[in-house]
Amino acid sequence: MTTAETTGGTTAGVLAARQRSAELEELIRKDPGRFRVLTGDRPTGRLHLGHYFGTLHNRVRLQELGVETFLIIADYQVLTDRDVAERLDEYVEDLVLDYLAAGIDPERTTIFAHSAVPALNQLLLPFLSLVSVAELGRNPTVKDEIAQSRQSAVSGLMFTYPAHQAADILFCKANLVPVGQDQLPHLELTRTIARRFNDRYGNGAAPVFPEPDALLSAAPLLLGTDGAKMSKSRGNAVSLAATADETARLIRGAKTDPERHITYDPAARPEVSSLVLLAALCLGRDPRDVAADIGDKGAAALKATVTEAVNEHLAPIRDRRARYAQDLGYVRRILRDGNEIANEVAQATLDDVRAAMKTLY
Amino acid sequence: MTTAETTGGTTAGVLAARQRSAELEELIRKDPGRFRVLTGDRPTGRLHLGHYFGTLHNRVRLQELGVETFLIIADYQVLTDRDVAERLDEYVEDLVLDYLAAGIDPERTTIFAHSAVPALNQLLLPFLSLVSVAELGRNPTVKDEIAQSRQSAVSGLMFTYPAHQAADILFCKANLVPVGQDQLPHLELTRTIARRFNDRYGNGAAPVFPEPDALLSAAPLLLGTDGAKMSKSRGNAVSLAATADETARLIRGAKTDPERHITYDPAARPEVSSLVLLAALCLGRDPRDVAADIGDKGAAALKATVTEAVNEHLAPIRDRRARYAQDLGYVRRILRDGNEIANEVAQATLDDVRAAMKTLY
Repeated sequence: MTTAETTGGTTAGVLAARQRSAELEELIRKDPGRFRVLTGDRPTGRLHLGHYFGTLHNRVRLQELGVETFLIIADYQVLTDRDVAERLDEYVEDLVLDYLAAGIDPERTTIFAHSAVPALNQLLLPFLSLVSVAELGRNPTVKDEIAQSRQSAVSGLMFTYPAHQAADILFCKANLVPVGQDQLPHLELTRTIARRFNDRYGNGAAPVFPEPDALLSAAPLLLGTDGAKMSKSRGNAVSLAATADETARLIRGAKTDPERHITYDPAARPEVSSLVLLAALCLGRDPRDVAADIGDKGAAALKATVTEAVNEHLAPIRDRRARYAQDLGYVRRILRDGNEIANEVAQATLDDVRAAMKTLY
Repeated sequence: MTTAETTGGTTAGVLAARQRSAELEELIRKDPGRFRVLTGDRPTGRLHLGHYFGTLHNRVRLQELGVETFLIIADYQVLTDRDVAERLDEYVEDLVLDYLAAGIDPERTTIFAHSAVPALNQLLLPFLSLVSVAELGRNPTVKDEIAQSRQSAVSGLMFTYPAHQAADILFCKANLVPVGQDQLPHLELTRTIARRFNDRYGNGAAPVFPEPDALLSAAPLLLGTDGAKMSKSRGNAVSLAATADETARLIRGAKTDPERHITYDPAARPEVSSLVLLAALCLGRDPRDVAADIGDKGAAALKATVTEAVNEHLAPIRDRRARYAQDLGYVRRILRDGNEIANEVAQATLDDVRAAMKTLY
């Protein structure tokens, strides 16, 4: 994007996506049955409050509105920036537990793992034929991830990851993908691949793939307890699975500032405001009201409020998580059932693709 | 390769591969059962004499020696340098017909299509995580193919093609791959991927993948009738399926040189020598003897000899091809059966891979 295309730091593309997302929310409320959502996570460990309020909460909301959802555990994508992914099986189990605990209902949402669906992964091949090396290299998210990568050299898997993500989305012909602003370029590439495939192999009247819409969700800006981005490896985030005591200890140690009077001012007071916001999200209140209630009572009172709000909000989630953790056989069955459904869906799509490409022998 | 590593225009790697191939030929004769071969073609049209004497003949030879062979029809790889591959299904049918005609026995050699084996294609993902973008870009064959490509931009499929070829070879744990000299770097990458996978995920005692050996075959240098490389699109090659009359017409129009006396001297007289060699290959004779027999009788006599030799050699092959072409249902069943076997083999390998990577949920 050149600066000419930006408006006060927000690109024209983002503004258009916001506008479109508002329209989509309206359509979802009216007729949820016309949408199919693809969303998911890389299994890198337990989910924390950043994930919960950033994406998971929104997924449960869409599910409750009646939107059919495919929830992908992108296990191969863990390898894009980690040389060895040990304990992938445990990470995957943790993720399913977090999903179930947060309210994902496997009767309505298909939870499945990437590596269990060969027909999905095969789509990478025709899709790679539709994008140039230059297009793959230009993707800003890939550029970012390359810059942040823990590996000495960029792997072929990292480089091709936007095309693989297109396979994730299009294997189930999803037409709606909840994304953050930074993921818009990815989705744009998926739309490009869908369009090129349809132009090249479709018969016009009946395109093989939809061009999925981005549903921009306004992820709240929650910082870790050290004021940096929440991250499991930094130990600065409250995981859904943490106990009430662990939660209290972590929040007690959170960074604040010397100003006693508590206000909600994210730009000037990021750490304090993040705590206020966290309490507000858990309480379903306006963060300014939460701050006003605490006022001169200072950081200790703020932390007590946050701890209580988080623990209360997470209590039923943690109860559910503990119950499911007692029955890992059930959890594994959920995943196996989801894998089976995903395989049926992927096989049907691959049959369409092979018929369109005249490779159905 | 730097010049320091080359010996008289031949790299040290090629010399080592030749030495190794001679040893392998010895081992094959002694114990063919310890080898499994992967070989194949891109379905881009009917096979011609260049393919026949370059690879197909050698495959039938290995099969007759008792080596188990997987013969892949690499349909997705047609898309690496063609924007649209129309009539892929017909090309694939033609290829199977040519195989059967040339003596490939589906009872001993598994013929299958790339796009019909999702579990094979899935291997591309873990394999891509084991190679860097720099390694992919360095591959000389990819560089060449990029230079010769008909597409305006290099596709992601072209760029990742050596990793995909590793999946082709390793899905059936082949330990032997007949290659021409120019394909040695490809196979080297497959060996690298196998080694890295074993190092990273194997348990040492039982590596998941073999490191396959290259079996260098000395492909005879046959030129097209215009003196250029044989190529279907140039119309300068005798296809296996051509009639005796078409063959005679094509050879009659072949380029020769003004020198009446026929000799076998590939360096000084490439076109005449190529014709002599073609006759010699069909007759199972030494090309120098063939040339001496013609001597002063000139180019017309040479062409008559070549035409007769080719038509006689191809007659039983053409008969078989015509018979199979009458029973396309059988031909399609061969491919379906081969696809089924390849799927079973690929699924077993993928299970090994998923277990080693701890992604078997």
